[in-house]
Amino acid sequence: MKPVKYQFLVNWGDTDAAGIVYYPNYYKWMDQASHHLFSIHGYKVSELFKNEKMGLPLLEAKCQFKSPLFFEDEVYVLSIVKEIRNKVFIIEHEFKKGDIEIANGYEIRAWTDFSNGKPKAVSIPEVVRLAFFGDESDRKII
Amino acid sequence: MKPVKYQFLVNWGDTDAAGIVYYPNYYKWMDQASHHLFSIHGYKVSELFKNEKMGLPLLEAKCQFKSPLFFEDEVYVLSIVKEIRNKVFIIEHEFKKGDIEIANGYEIRAWTDFSNGKPKAVSIPEVVRLAFFGDESDRKII
Amino acid sequence: MKPVKYQFLVNWGDTDAAGIVYYPNYYKWMDQASHHLFSIHGYKVSELFKNEKMGLPLLEAKCQFKSPLFFEDEVYVLSIVKEIRNKVFIIEHEFKKGDIEIANGYEIRAWTDFSNGKPKAVSIPEVVRLAFFGDESDRKII
Amino acid sequence: MKPVKYQFLVNWGDTDAAGIVYYPNYYKWMDQASHHLFSIHGYKVSELFKNEKMGLPLLEAKCQFKSPLFFEDEVYVLSIVKEIRNKVFIIEHEFKKGDIEIANGYEIRAWTDFSNGKPKAVSIPEVVRLAFFGDESDRKII
Repeated sequence: MKPVKYQFLVNWGDTDAAGIVYYPNYYKWMDQASHHLFSIHGYKVSELFKNEKMGLPLLEAKCQFKSPLFFEDEVYVLSIVKEIRNKVFIIEHEFKKGDIEIANGYEIRAWTDFSNGKPKAVSIPEVVRLAFFGDESDRKII
Repeated sequence: MKPVKYQFLVNWGDTDAAGIVYYPNYYKWMDQASHHLFSIHGYKVSELFKNEKMGLPLLEAKCQFKSPLFFEDEVYVLSIVKEIRNKVFIIEHEFKKGDIEIANGYEIRAWTDFSNGKPKAVSIPEVVRLAFFGDESDRKII
Repeated sequence: MKPVKYQFLVNWGDTDAAGIVYYPNYYKWMDQASHHLFSIHGYKVSELFKNEKMGLPLLEAKCQFKSPLFFEDEVYVLSIVKEIRNKVFIIEHEFKKGDIEIANGYEIRAWTDFSNGKPKAVSIPEVVRLAFFGDESDRKII
Repeated sequence: MKPVKYQFLVNWGDTDAAGIVYYPNYYKWMDQASHHLFSIHGYKVSELFKNEKMGLPLLEAKCQFKSPLFFEDEVYVLSIVKEIRNKVFIIEHEFKKGDIEIANGYEIRAWTDFSNGKPKAVSIPEVVRLAFFGDESDRKII
């Protein structure tokens, strides 16, 4: 499995009075990059949610900031599902501007059933697992 | 009926690289002030939505900006339901910092039924109308 | 002069608990579309601000909402500078999803000098005016 | 030193189409809680930035999510400066709704000079250190 690339432009509204990006936006971009990653692997989260009431809420997220971003910077995120546990995905994200390392982080997300009002984490189906780790050669055994 | 006061502090994340508030935030604050206004008149929108699947989506919103806002400014909004038509509320908002006029705007919101998937504007019940214009003396006939 | 097209995908974070887009985001998108519009006409706002301390803060913005947007909808905005007055641009925006009319609005922005701490609107230079209304045939006389 | 309490109401715009809070907002609230914490200890960040061009950008932030938040929930954050290193603050945050544990996280922020265009982390002055760890009895030696 290879990292998936998600590109974006820093918008005016992403900056703060210090002239650099306001930090919660990095988590917004990790969220967008994860949705993009799932789409690329055949799971459009909008359809998952509409058709099966399945979603991917967060258990944990961390980001380390290496170099600031500015308005109209062209940025890309390299995202990869690093591990799949019973109910949980671990997704890693690396932010780059050209060759400059901007930030890196991860998200832990639970495969979650929203059909009964109260969200409930459930086991990730084999078919979903295979969409990410279908190639035995690079499949991580957990 | 008197205007209802909603107070807030400008947060760091509300500013942009020009050092002033990023303009879409004024609409965020009008939205918050409207929810506060409905709560004060006995209609907590969270309960309306949970219990009756009724909401108040926007048909139109406008704001005029008179004087910029800065980080940690103490601001208040004076909000009032100016008119109630068959399915629609017209809400006016005035932003002030001390005596300084900051901005003013309005929102047009439809009394909307979300129970059937597709949102549908419906007539505003008399009991809701009375919560805002109960005092005959200042009631606007439309 | 022809409208400039700005495309985007509705992100998960743009939605609210009613399942549709939270309305202040339309103003965020008008802001992004305006920056895109200025870039296309040769004025990258990030460079204007960095090199000349010129910016384009808002005097007024209005939007009318025709049809709701949902997560992962593919949307485009058609933006055009409708008028240029002495110190002010009037920019119109039309939101579409395929052939469906989603929303339309406008922004009034002042050509503003940020070099002296206090923002000050100044006359728009002829060279900037020409970048938008260079073709005499469709030039609006004000 | 005791934790400082920062209270807020979950706004409509903080929710997403799953009906719960969109996760980057927790980092927005950690940021607000940290600014509140610094104000309480005598350092209003708006004045620090305006008067001395000092700011507190992030090196790292992490949050773990225990229980979801909903529209109009009343939430508080308990925040504390856990450690002060040479150029860096470690701030811990605990989110609660009544007695329910909602989330907990930390931020690592650098004491940063913005006066020369390029942000530069510098040593934290003793007077600032004392504002947080003035009482020898609970002072952490690093």
